[in-house]
Amino acid sequence: MAGCREVLMCTPRGRDGKVAPAVLYAADLCGVERIFGIGGAQAVAAMAYGTGTVPKVDKIFGPGNRYVSMAKRLVNGQGVAVDMFAGPSEVLVMADGSCDPRFVAADLLSQAEHGRDSKVCLLTDNEELSVRILKELNCRLDRLPRRETAGAALEGSLSVVLRTREDMVDFADAYAPEHLIISMSDPWEIAGKVNAAGSVFIGNFSPESAGDYASGTNHTLPTSGTATACSGVGVDSFMHYVTYQEITRKGLENLSGAIVQMAEAEGLDAHAEAVRARMSY
Amino acid sequence: MAGCREVLMCTPRGRDGKVAPAVLYAADLCGVERIFGIGGAQAVAAMAYGTGTVPKVDKIFGPGNRYVSMAKRLVNGQGVAVDMFAGPSEVLVMADGSCDPRFVAADLLSQAEHGRDSKVCLLTDNEELSVRILKELNCRLDRLPRRETAGAALEGSLSVVLRTREDMVDFADAYAPEHLIISMSDPWEIAGKVNAAGSVFIGNFSPESAGDYASGTNHTLPTSGTATACSGVGVDSFMHYVTYQEITRKGLENLSGAIVQMAEAEGLDAHAEAVRARMSY
Repeated sequence: MAGCREVLMCTPRGRDGKVAPAVLYAADLCGVERIFGIGGAQAVAAMAYGTGTVPKVDKIFGPGNRYVSMAKRLVNGQGVAVDMFAGPSEVLVMADGSCDPRFVAADLLSQAEHGRDSKVCLLTDNEELSVRILKELNCRLDRLPRRETAGAALEGSLSVVLRTREDMVDFADAYAPEHLIISMSDPWEIAGKVNAAGSVFIGNFSPESAGDYASGTNHTLPTSGTATACSGVGVDSFMHYVTYQEITRKGLENLSGAIVQMAEAEGLDAHAEAVRARMSY
Repeated sequence: MAGCREVLMCTPRGRDGKVAPAVLYAADLCGVERIFGIGGAQAVAAMAYGTGTVPKVDKIFGPGNRYVSMAKRLVNGQGVAVDMFAGPSEVLVMADGSCDPRFVAADLLSQAEHGRDSKVCLLTDNEELSVRILKELNCRLDRLPRRETAGAALEGSLSVVLRTREDMVDFADAYAPEHLIISMSDPWEIAGKVNAAGSVFIGNFSPESAGDYASGTNHTLPTSGTATACSGVGVDSFMHYVTYQEITRKGLENLSGAIVQMAEAEGLDAHAEAVRARMSY
Protein backbone atom coordinates (compact mmCIF):
# COMPACT_ATOMS: atom_id res chain seq x y z
CA MET A 1 0.00 0.00 0.00
CA ALA A 2 2.85 2.38 0.78
CA GLY A 3 4.51 1.64 -2.57
CA CYS A 4 7.79 0.29 -1.18
CA ARG A 5 9.92 -0.84 -4.10
CA GLU A 6 11.54 -3.77 -2.31
CA VAL A 7 10.60 -5.58 0.89
CA LEU A 8 12.94 -8.13 2.42
CA MET A 9 12.74 -10.10 5.63
CA CYS A 10 15.23 -11.53 8.10
CA THR A 11 13.87 -14.23 10.39
CA PRO A 12 15.71 -16.79 12.51
CA ARG A 13 15.69 -20.48 11.59
CA GLY A 14 14.36 -23.09 13.97
CA ARG A 15 16.41 -25.94 15.43
CA ASP A 16 15.69 -27.90 12.26
CA GLY A 17 17.44 -25.18 10.24
CA LYS A 18 14.17 -24.08 8.67
CA VAL A 19 12.04 -20.95 8.82
CA ALA A 20 8.59 -21.55 10.37
CA PRO A 21 6.01 -22.33 7.64
CA ALA A 22 3.45 -19.89 9.14
CA VAL A 23 6.03 -17.09 8.83
CA LEU A 24 6.84 -18.03 5.23
CA TYR A 25 3.13 -18.11 4.37
CA ALA A 26 2.54 -14.65 5.89
CA ALA A 27 5.59 -13.24 4.09
CA ASP A 28 4.34 -14.60 0.79
CA LEU A 29 0.88 -13.08 1.39
CA CYS A 30 2.55 -9.69 2.03
CA GLY A 31 4.70 -9.78 -1.10
CA VAL A 32 8.08 -10.10 0.60
CA GLU A 33 10.56 -10.61 -2.24
CA ARG A 34 13.59 -11.99 -0.38
CA ILE A 35 13.88 -13.86 2.90
CA PHE A 36 17.11 -14.38 4.83
CA GLY A 37 17.21 -17.08 7.50
CA ILE A 38 19.04 -14.97 10.05
CA GLY A 39 17.88 -13.21 13.22
CA GLY A 40 19.13 -11.28 16.21
CA ALA A 41 21.42 -8.26 16.40
CA GLN A 42 23.45 -9.66 13.51
CA ALA A 43 20.40 -9.48 11.21
CA VAL A 44 19.93 -5.82 12.19
CA ALA A 45 23.59 -5.12 11.44
CA ALA A 46 23.38 -6.91 8.07
CA MET A 47 20.38 -4.80 7.00
CA ALA A 48 21.88 -1.56 8.35
CA TYR A 49 25.30 -1.86 6.69
CA GLY A 50 24.70 -4.39 3.92
CA THR A 51 26.74 -7.55 3.37
CA GLY A 52 27.72 -9.66 0.38
CA THR A 53 24.27 -11.26 0.45
CA VAL A 54 21.96 -8.96 2.46
CA PRO A 55 21.40 -5.53 0.88
CA LYS A 56 21.57 -2.33 2.93
CA VAL A 57 17.96 -1.24 3.59
CA ASP A 58 16.33 2.19 4.05
CA LYS A 59 14.32 1.30 7.16
CA ILE A 60 14.20 -1.60 9.61
CA PHE A 61 10.90 -2.79 11.11
CA GLY A 62 10.05 -5.41 13.65
CA PRO A 63 10.27 -6.56 17.22
CA GLY A 64 12.93 -8.61 18.97
CA ASN A 65 14.66 -9.31 22.23
CA ARG A 66 16.83 -6.82 24.13
CA TYR A 67 19.82 -7.47 21.85
CA VAL A 68 17.75 -6.72 18.76
CA SER A 69 16.33 -3.59 20.42
CA MET A 70 19.80 -2.35 21.32
CA ALA A 71 21.09 -3.11 17.81
CA LYS A 72 18.21 -1.09 16.33
CA ARG A 73 19.02 1.77 18.69
CA LEU A 74 22.70 1.72 17.73
CA VAL A 75 22.16 1.73 13.98
CA ASN A 76 19.45 4.38 14.37
CA GLY A 77 22.07 6.57 16.05
CA GLN A 78 24.07 6.23 12.82
CA GLY A 79 21.20 7.42 10.66
CA VAL A 80 19.39 4.17 9.76
CA ALA A 81 15.62 4.62 10.12
CA VAL A 82 13.75 2.16 12.35
CA ASP A 83 10.07 1.72 13.17
CA MET A 84 10.22 2.26 16.95
CA PHE A 85 11.76 1.04 20.18
CA ALA A 86 9.29 -1.23 21.93
CA GLY A 87 9.55 -1.91 25.65
CA PRO A 88 7.62 -4.51 27.66
CA SER A 89 3.98 -4.83 26.60
CA GLU A 90 1.29 -3.07 28.68
CA VAL A 91 -2.46 -3.04 29.17
CA LEU A 92 -4.55 -0.62 31.21
CA VAL A 93 -8.17 -1.70 31.74
CA MET A 94 -10.63 0.99 32.84
CA ALA A 95 -13.70 -0.68 34.35
CA ASP A 96 -16.93 0.40 36.05
CA GLY A 97 -20.07 -1.39 37.19
CA SER A 98 -21.11 -2.02 33.58
CA CYS A 99 -18.19 -4.39 32.95
CA ASP A 100 -18.22 -8.16 33.24
CA PRO A 101 -15.54 -9.06 35.83
CA ARG A 102 -14.88 -12.37 34.05
CA PHE A 103 -14.01 -10.57 30.79
CA VAL A 104 -11.82 -8.01 32.56
CA ALA A 105 -9.96 -10.77 34.43
CA ALA A 106 -9.40 -12.65 31.16
CA ASP A 107 -8.03 -9.49 29.49
CA LEU A 108 -5.62 -8.78 32.36
CA LEU A 109 -4.33 -12.36 32.13
CA SER A 110 -3.91 -12.27 28.36
CA GLN A 111 -1.46 -9.38 28.83
CA ALA A 112 0.23 -10.97 31.85
CA GLU A 113 1.08 -14.19 29.98
CA HIS A 114 3.20 -12.27 27.39
CA GLY A 115 6.24 -12.12 29.64
CA ARG A 116 7.42 -11.71 33.20
CA ASP A 117 7.99 -7.99 32.55
CA SER A 118 4.50 -7.37 31.08
CA LYS A 119 2.73 -4.46 32.72
CA VAL A 120 -0.89 -5.00 33.72
CA CYS A 121 -3.02 -2.30 35.33
CA LEU A 122 -6.65 -2.36 36.46
CA LEU A 123 -8.23 1.06 36.99
CA THR A 124 -11.68 1.55 38.50
CA ASP A 125 -13.72 3.86 40.72
CA ASN A 126 -15.36 0.90 42.50
CA GLU A 127 -13.38 -0.91 45.18
CA GLU A 128 -15.80 -3.81 45.50
CA LEU A 129 -15.59 -4.36 41.74
CA SER A 130 -11.80 -4.46 41.86
CA VAL A 131 -11.97 -7.15 44.55
CA ARG A 132 -14.37 -9.25 42.43
CA ILE A 133 -12.13 -8.89 39.36
CA LEU A 134 -9.00 -9.91 41.26
CA LYS A 135 -10.79 -12.92 42.72
CA GLU A 136 -11.87 -13.98 39.24
CA LEU A 137 -8.34 -13.39 37.98
CA ASN A 138 -6.77 -15.66 40.62
CA CYS A 139 -9.26 -18.40 39.78
CA ARG A 140 -8.42 -18.24 36.07
CA LEU A 141 -4.68 -17.92 36.62
CA ASP A 142 -4.42 -21.42 38.05
CA ARG A 143 -5.87 -22.92 34.88
CA LEU A 144 -3.35 -21.25 32.53
CA PRO A 145 -0.51 -23.19 30.90
CA ARG A 146 1.68 -20.06 31.23
CA ARG A 147 0.59 -19.40 34.85
CA GLU A 148 4.21 -19.13 36.02
CA THR A 149 4.97 -16.28 33.60
CA ALA A 150 1.59 -14.60 34.13
CA GLY A 151 1.93 -14.85 37.91
CA ALA A 152 5.36 -13.21 37.82
CA ALA A 153 4.00 -10.35 35.69
CA LEU A 154 1.04 -9.87 38.04
CA GLU A 155 3.37 -9.47 41.02
CA GLY A 156 4.71 -6.27 39.43
CA SER A 157 1.26 -5.09 38.35
CA LEU A 158 -1.23 -2.59 39.71
CA SER A 159 -4.86 -2.40 40.76
CA VAL A 160 -5.82 1.26 41.20
CA VAL A 161 -9.09 2.53 42.70
CA LEU A 162 -9.77 6.25 42.29
CA ARG A 163 -12.62 8.39 43.53
CA THR A 164 -14.05 9.77 40.27
CA ARG A 165 -14.24 9.05 36.55
CA GLU A 166 -12.33 12.30 35.95
CA ASP A 167 -9.48 10.99 38.11
CA MET A 168 -9.53 7.78 36.09
CA VAL A 169 -9.21 9.76 32.85
CA ASP A 170 -6.30 11.82 34.24
CA PHE A 171 -4.54 8.65 35.41
CA ALA A 172 -4.97 6.91 32.03
CA ASP A 173 -3.78 9.98 30.14
CA ALA A 174 -0.66 10.27 32.31
CA TYR A 175 0.02 6.51 32.06
CA ALA A 176 -0.27 6.62 28.24
CA PRO A 177 -0.72 2.84 27.96
CA GLU A 178 0.18 0.79 24.89
CA HIS A 179 -3.25 -0.92 25.08
CA LEU A 180 -6.24 0.75 26.72
CA ILE A 181 -9.40 -1.27 27.28
CA ILE A 182 -12.44 0.80 28.30
CA SER A 183 -15.12 -1.42 29.86
CA MET A 184 -17.33 1.41 31.07
CA SER A 185 -20.90 2.55 30.47
CA ASP A 186 -19.82 5.50 28.30
CA PRO A 187 -16.66 4.15 26.64
CA TRP A 188 -16.53 6.54 23.66
CA GLU A 189 -16.93 9.59 25.88
CA ILE A 190 -14.06 8.37 28.07
CA ALA A 191 -11.98 7.52 25.00
CA GLY A 192 -12.43 11.06 23.71
CA LYS A 193 -10.85 12.42 26.86
CA VAL A 194 -7.75 10.19 26.89
CA ASN A 195 -5.23 11.74 24.49
CA ALA A 196 -2.35 9.34 25.01
CA ALA A 197 -2.71 5.63 24.22
CA GLY A 198 -1.41 3.27 21.56
CA SER A 199 -4.63 1.41 20.71
CA VAL A 200 -8.03 1.66 22.41
CA PHE A 201 -10.50 -1.22 22.87
CA ILE A 202 -14.07 -0.07 23.39
CA GLY A 203 -16.74 -1.94 25.32
CA ASN A 204 -17.18 -5.47 26.60
CA PHE A 205 -16.62 -7.42 23.38
CA SER A 206 -13.31 -5.91 22.24
CA PRO A 207 -10.55 -7.93 23.94
CA GLU A 208 -6.93 -7.00 23.32
CA SER A 209 -6.34 -10.37 21.70
CA ALA A 210 -8.71 -9.31 18.91
CA GLY A 211 -6.38 -6.38 18.21
CA ASP A 212 -3.34 -8.64 18.44
CA TYR A 213 -4.61 -11.00 15.76
CA ALA A 214 -7.67 -10.06 13.78
CA SER A 215 -9.46 -6.72 14.22
CA GLY A 216 -7.19 -4.96 11.74
CA THR A 217 -5.45 -2.31 13.85
CA ASN A 218 -1.67 -2.56 14.04
CA HIS A 219 -0.14 -4.55 16.86
CA THR A 220 3.21 -2.65 16.95
CA LEU A 221 2.43 0.15 19.39
CA PRO A 222 4.26 2.72 21.55
CA THR A 223 5.10 1.52 25.09
CA SER A 224 6.59 2.95 28.30
CA GLY A 225 4.59 6.19 28.15
CA THR A 226 5.81 7.14 24.66
CA ALA A 227 2.19 7.14 23.42
CA THR A 228 2.13 10.77 24.59
CA ALA A 229 3.97 11.70 21.38
CA CYS A 230 4.41 8.54 19.28
CA SER A 231 2.03 6.44 17.21
CA GLY A 232 1.84 2.78 16.34
CA VAL A 233 3.14 1.44 13.06
CA GLY A 234 0.85 2.20 10.13
CA VAL A 235 1.01 2.59 6.36
CA ASP A 236 2.63 6.00 6.84
CA SER A 237 5.50 4.33 8.73
CA PHE A 238 6.51 2.86 5.36
CA MET A 239 6.31 6.21 3.55
CA HIS A 240 8.25 9.42 3.54
CA TYR A 241 7.12 12.80 2.35
CA VAL A 242 8.85 15.18 -0.06
CA THR A 243 7.84 18.82 -0.40
CA TYR A 244 7.96 20.54 -3.81
CA GLN A 245 7.88 24.18 -4.78
CA GLU A 246 7.81 25.83 -8.18
CA ILE A 247 7.87 29.61 -8.14
CA THR A 248 7.28 31.87 -11.13
CA ARG A 249 9.32 35.00 -11.78
CA LYS A 250 6.35 37.09 -10.65
CA GLY A 251 5.86 34.91 -7.56
CA LEU A 252 9.50 35.28 -6.57
CA GLU A 253 9.21 39.03 -7.05
CA ASN A 254 6.30 39.04 -4.59
CA LEU A 255 8.31 37.05 -2.03
CA SER A 256 11.62 38.81 -2.63
CA GLY A 257 11.15 41.57 -0.04
CA ALA A 258 10.51 39.08 2.77
CA ILE A 259 13.32 36.73 1.73
CA VAL A 260 15.95 39.47 1.37
CA GLN A 261 14.96 41.11 4.66
CA MET A 262 15.10 37.87 6.64
CA ALA A 263 18.35 36.74 4.99
CA GLU A 264 19.98 40.07 5.80
CA ALA A 265 18.70 39.91 9.39
CA GLU A 266 20.52 36.59 9.69
CA GLY A 267 23.65 37.92 7.99
CA LEU A 268 23.29 35.46 5.11
CA ASP A 269 24.03 37.66 2.14
CA ALA A 270 24.35 34.85 -0.41
CA HIS A 271 20.76 33.82 0.46
CA ALA A 272 19.58 37.32 -0.43
CA GLU A 273 21.81 37.35 -3.50
CA ALA A 274 20.17 34.17 -4.87
CA VAL A 275 16.94 36.19 -5.09
CA ARG A 276 18.52 39.45 -6.26
CA ALA A 277 20.38 37.64 -9.05
CA ARG A 278 17.07 36.39 -10.42
CA MET A 279 15.37 39.78 -10.11
CA SER A 280 18.14 41.49 -12.13
CA TYR A 281 17.32 39.70 -15.36
CA MET B 1 -3.04 23.36 13.61
CA ALA B 2 -2.02 20.06 15.24
CA GLY B 3 -4.00 20.87 18.38
CA CYS B 4 -1.07 20.80 20.83
CA ARG B 5 -2.37 21.76 24.23
CA GLU B 6 0.74 23.60 25.36
CA VAL B 7 3.71 24.93 23.43
CA LEU B 8 6.77 26.23 25.22
CA MET B 9 10.09 27.48 23.93
CA CYS B 10 13.67 27.51 25.19
CA THR B 11 15.96 30.00 23.49
CA PRO B 12 19.33 31.36 24.58
CA ARG B 13 19.68 34.96 25.74
CA GLY B 14 22.05 37.34 23.97
CA ARG B 15 25.03 39.05 25.62
CA ASP B 16 22.63 41.72 26.88
CA GLY B 17 20.72 39.02 28.79
CA LYS B 18 17.72 39.38 26.49
CA VAL B 19 16.02 37.11 23.98
CA ALA B 20 16.19 38.46 20.41
CA PRO B 21 13.07 40.56 19.62
CA ALA B 22 12.58 38.82 16.24
CA VAL B 23 12.43 35.46 18.05
CA LEU B 24 9.92 36.78 20.60
CA TYR B 25 7.77 38.22 17.83
CA ALA B 26 7.74 34.91 15.94
CA ALA B 27 6.95 32.97 19.14
CA ASP B 28 4.03 35.29 19.86
CA LEU B 29 2.68 34.87 16.31
CA CYS B 30 2.81 31.08 16.77
CA GLY B 31 0.99 31.09 20.11
CA VAL B 32 3.91 29.97 22.28
CA GLU B 33 2.63 30.23 25.85
CA ARG B 34 5.85 30.16 27.84
CA ILE B 35 9.40 31.14 26.93
CA PHE B 36 12.50 30.20 28.91
CA GLY B 37 15.70 32.15 28.28
CA ILE B 38 17.95 29.11 28.23
CA GLY B 39 19.67 27.22 25.41
CA GLY B 40 22.13 24.43 24.70
CA ALA B 41 22.20 20.87 25.97
CA GLN B 42 20.98 22.10 29.36
CA ALA B 43 17.72 23.34 27.78
CA VAL B 44 17.21 19.92 26.18
CA ALA B 45 17.79 18.24 29.57
CA ALA B 46 15.38 20.64 31.31
CA MET B 47 12.60 19.86 28.83
CA ALA B 48 13.32 16.11 28.83
CA TYR B 49 13.34 15.62 32.61
CA GLY B 50 11.51 18.69 33.91
CA THR B 51 12.89 21.09 36.54
CA GLY B 52 11.37 23.32 39.20
CA THR B 53 10.56 25.89 36.50
CA VAL B 54 10.65 24.09 33.13
CA PRO B 55 7.97 21.41 32.71
CA LYS B 56 8.76 17.99 31.24
CA VAL B 57 7.56 18.01 27.63
CA ASP B 58 6.22 15.28 25.34
CA LYS B 59 8.39 16.13 22.33
CA ILE B 60 11.38 18.36 21.64
CA PHE B 61 11.75 20.20 18.33
CA GLY B 62 14.44 22.41 16.94
CA PRO B 63 17.97 22.71 15.66
CA GLY B 64 21.17 23.39 17.56
CA ASN B 65 24.89 22.86 17.61
CA ARG B 66 26.59 19.49 18.09
CA TYR B 67 26.02 19.57 21.86
CA VAL B 68 22.29 20.15 21.40
CA SER B 69 22.16 17.39 18.79
CA MET B 70 23.93 14.94 21.11
CA ALA B 71 21.66 15.93 24.02
CA LYS B 72 18.60 15.26 21.84
CA ARG B 73 20.03 11.90 20.84
CA LEU B 74 20.70 10.95 24.48
CA VAL B 75 17.22 11.86 25.77
CA ASN B 76 15.64 10.19 22.74
CA GLY B 77 17.43 7.00 23.78
CA GLN B 78 15.55 7.31 27.07
CA GLY B 79 12.16 7.55 25.38
CA VAL B 80 11.71 11.33 24.89
CA ALA B 81 10.39 12.04 21.40
CA VAL B 82 12.37 14.47 19.23
CA ASP B 83 11.76 15.91 15.77
CA MET B 84 14.87 14.61 14.00
CA PHE B 85 18.66 14.61 14.04
CA ALA B 86 19.91 17.16 11.55
CA GLY B 87 23.44 16.98 10.17
CA PRO B 88 25.24 19.60 8.08
CA SER B 89 22.99 21.26 5.50
CA GLU B 90 23.17 20.10 1.87
CA VAL B 91 22.08 21.17 -1.59
CA LEU B 92 22.24 19.21 -4.82
CA VAL B 93 21.61 21.25 -7.98
CA MET B 94 20.72 19.33 -11.15
CA ALA B 95 21.33 21.58 -14.15
CA ASP B 96 21.17 21.28 -17.94
CA GLY B 97 21.48 23.71 -20.83
CA SER B 98 18.15 25.34 -19.90
CA CYS B 99 19.52 26.72 -16.62
CA ASP B 100 20.97 30.17 -16.04
CA PRO B 101 24.55 29.63 -14.77
CA ARG B 102 24.34 32.83 -12.70
CA PHE B 103 21.31 31.53 -10.79
CA VAL B 104 22.88 28.12 -10.22
CA ALA B 105 26.12 29.71 -8.97
CA ALA B 106 24.12 31.91 -6.58
CA ASP B 107 22.22 28.87 -5.24
CA LEU B 108 25.41 26.87 -4.66
CA LEU B 109 26.89 29.83 -2.75
CA SER B 110 23.78 30.35 -0.61
CA GLN B 111 24.22 26.80 0.69
CA ALA B 112 28.00 27.13 1.05
CA GLU B 113 27.75 30.21 3.27
CA HIS B 114 25.77 28.26 5.94
CA GLY B 115 28.85 26.68 7.47
CA ARG B 116 32.26 25.23 6.72
CA ASP B 117 30.72 21.74 6.78
CA SER B 118 27.87 22.57 4.36
CA LYS B 119 27.65 20.12 1.48
CA VAL B 120 27.26 21.59 -2.00
CA CYS B 121 26.93 19.46 -5.13
CA LEU B 122 26.48 20.46 -8.77
CA LEU B 123 25.22 17.70 -11.04
CA THR B 124 25.00 18.05 -14.81
CA ASP B 125 25.35 16.14 -18.07
CA ASN B 126 27.17 19.04 -19.72
CA GLU B 127 30.84 19.55 -18.95
CA GLU B 128 31.09 22.94 -20.61
CA LEU B 129 28.10 24.12 -18.53
CA SER B 130 29.76 22.99 -15.30
CA VAL B 131 32.86 25.01 -16.20
CA ARG B 132 30.76 28.14 -16.84
CA ILE B 133 28.89 27.70 -13.53
CA LEU B 134 32.10 27.25 -11.54
CA LYS B 135 33.61 30.33 -13.17
CA GLU B 136 30.52 32.35 -12.25
CA LEU B 137 30.65 30.92 -8.74
CA ASN B 138 34.26 31.98 -8.18
CA CYS B 139 33.43 35.48 -9.39
CA ARG B 140 30.54 35.81 -6.94
CA LEU B 141 32.38 34.19 -4.06
CA ASP B 142 34.86 37.08 -3.85
CA ARG B 143 32.04 39.56 -3.29
CA LEU B 144 30.47 37.65 -0.35
CA PRO B 145 30.81 38.85 3.26
CA ARG B 146 30.95 35.19 4.35
CA ARG B 147 33.43 34.21 1.59
CA GLU B 148 35.78 32.57 4.07
CA THR B 149 33.09 30.16 5.31
CA ALA B 150 31.66 29.58 1.83
CA GLY B 151 35.14 28.98 0.41
CA ALA B 152 35.88 26.36 3.07
CA ALA B 153 32.60 24.58 2.32
CA LEU B 154 33.30 24.63 -1.42
CA GLU B 155 36.65 22.92 -0.89
CA GLY B 156 34.78 19.86 0.37
CA SER B 157 32.11 20.08 -2.32
CA LEU B 158 31.50 18.30 -5.60
CA SER B 159 30.88 19.08 -9.24
CA VAL B 160 29.73 15.92 -11.00
CA VAL B 161 29.31 15.49 -14.76
CA LEU B 162 27.50 12.34 -15.89
CA ARG B 163 26.76 11.03 -19.35
CA THR B 164 22.97 10.85 -19.32
CA ARG B 165 19.93 12.31 -17.59
CA GLU B 166 19.12 8.81 -16.30
CA ASP B 167 22.53 8.68 -14.61
CA MET B 168 21.78 12.07 -13.07
CA VAL B 169 18.49 10.77 -11.65
CA ASP B 170 20.19 7.66 -10.23
CA PHE B 171 22.90 9.79 -8.62
CA ALA B 172 20.39 12.21 -7.06
CA ASP B 173 18.24 9.35 -5.74
CA ALA B 174 21.25 7.65 -4.15
CA TYR B 175 22.50 10.96 -2.70
CA ALA B 176 19.05 11.71 -1.17
CA PRO B 177 19.85 15.41 -0.69
CA GLU B 178 18.22 17.63 1.94
CA HIS B 179 17.57 20.27 -0.75
CA LEU B 180 17.27 19.35 -4.43
CA ILE B 181 17.14 22.14 -7.03
CA ILE B 182 16.15 20.99 -10.52
CA SER B 183 17.15 23.60 -13.10
CA MET B 184 16.40 21.46 -16.14
CA SER B 185 14.11 21.66 -19.15
CA ASP B 186 11.72 19.00 -17.76
CA PRO B 187 11.99 19.56 -14.00
CA TRP B 188 8.70 17.88 -12.98
CA GLU B 189 9.49 14.76 -14.99
CA ILE B 190 12.90 14.54 -13.31
CA ALA B 191 11.34 15.26 -9.89
CA GLY B 192 8.92 12.38 -10.39
CA LYS B 193 11.85 9.98 -10.79
CA VAL B 194 13.80 11.05 -7.69
CA ASN B 195 12.25 9.29 -4.70
CA ALA B 196 14.59 10.49 -1.99
CA ALA B 197 14.94 14.20 -1.20
CA GLY B 198 13.92 16.49 1.64
CA SER B 199 12.52 19.41 -0.35
CA VAL B 200 12.56 19.93 -4.13
CA PHE B 201 12.91 23.30 -5.90
CA ILE B 202 11.57 23.28 -9.44
CA GLY B 203 12.79 25.49 -12.28
CA ASN B 204 14.83 28.66 -12.57
CA PHE B 205 12.91 30.92 -10.17
CA SER B 206 12.75 28.68 -7.09
CA PRO B 207 15.95 29.34 -5.11
CA GLU B 208 16.54 27.42 -1.89
CA SER B 209 16.48 30.69 0.05
CA ALA B 210 12.77 31.00 -0.89
CA GLY B 211 12.16 27.68 0.87
CA ASP B 212 14.29 28.77 3.83
CA TYR B 213 12.24 31.88 4.46
CA ALA B 214 9.03 32.38 2.57
CA SER B 215 7.62 29.77 0.17
CA GLY B 216 5.82 27.91 2.93
CA THR B 217 7.49 24.48 2.92
CA ASN B 218 9.21 23.47 6.13
CA HIS B 219 12.89 24.26 6.52
CA THR B 220 13.69 21.40 8.96
CA LEU B 221 14.58 18.58 6.59
CA PRO B 222 16.34 15.20 6.64
CA THR B 223 20.10 15.33 5.94
CA SER B 224 22.99 12.90 5.40
CA GLY B 225 21.03 10.57 3.14
CA THR B 226 18.21 9.99 5.63
CA ALA B 227 15.71 11.40 3.10
CA THR B 228 15.53 7.82 1.78
CA ALA B 229 13.19 7.00 4.68
CA CYS B 230 12.58 10.21 6.68
CA SER B 231 10.51 13.33 6.01
CA GLY B 232 10.86 16.95 6.98
CA VAL B 233 9.00 18.42 9.92
CA GLY B 234 5.31 19.03 9.17
CA VAL B 235 2.01 19.37 10.99
CA ASP B 236 1.97 15.60 11.48
CA SER B 237 5.27 15.83 13.40
CA PHE B 238 3.23 17.55 16.13
CA MET B 239 0.53 14.88 16.14
CA HIS B 240 0.25 11.28 17.18
CA TYR B 241 -2.30 8.72 16.11
CA VAL B 242 -4.46 6.45 18.25
CA THR B 243 -6.32 3.47 16.83
CA TYR B 244 -9.77 2.50 18.17
CA GLN B 245 -11.81 -0.65 17.84
CA GLU B 246 -15.29 -1.48 19.06
CA ILE B 247 -16.44 -5.02 18.35
CA THR B 248 -19.98 -6.32 18.79
CA ARG B 249 -20.74 -9.76 20.24
CA LYS B 250 -21.62 -10.96 16.75
CA GLY B 251 -18.45 -9.38 15.33
CA LEU B 252 -16.27 -11.10 17.91
CA GLU B 253 -18.00 -14.38 17.14
CA ASN B 254 -17.05 -13.93 13.49
CA LEU B 255 -13.41 -13.24 14.41
CA SER B 256 -13.17 -15.81 17.18
CA GLY B 257 -12.02 -18.74 15.03
CA ALA B 258 -9.07 -16.78 13.64
CA ILE B 259 -8.10 -15.31 17.01
CA VAL B 260 -8.23 -18.61 18.89
CA GLN B 261 -6.32 -20.47 16.19
CA MET B 262 -3.52 -17.89 16.02
CA ALA B 263 -3.29 -17.58 19.80
CA GLU B 264 -3.01 -21.35 20.16
CA ALA B 265 -0.37 -21.50 17.41
CA GLU B 266 1.68 -19.06 19.50
CA GLY B 267 1.01 -20.98 22.71
CA LEU B 268 -0.81 -17.99 24.24
CA ASP B 269 -3.77 -19.69 25.85
CA ALA B 270 -4.95 -16.68 27.87
CA HIS B 271 -5.28 -14.76 24.59
CA ALA B 272 -7.65 -17.44 23.31
CA GLU B 273 -9.41 -17.57 26.67
CA ALA B 274 -10.23 -13.82 26.51
CA VAL B 275 -12.33 -14.62 23.45
CA ARG B 276 -13.76 -17.91 24.71
CA ALA B 277 -14.86 -16.28 27.99
CA ARG B 278 -16.93 -13.78 26.02
CA MET B 279 -18.45 -16.44 23.75
CA SER B 280 -19.65 -18.51 26.74
CA TYR B 281 -22.20 -15.96 27.88
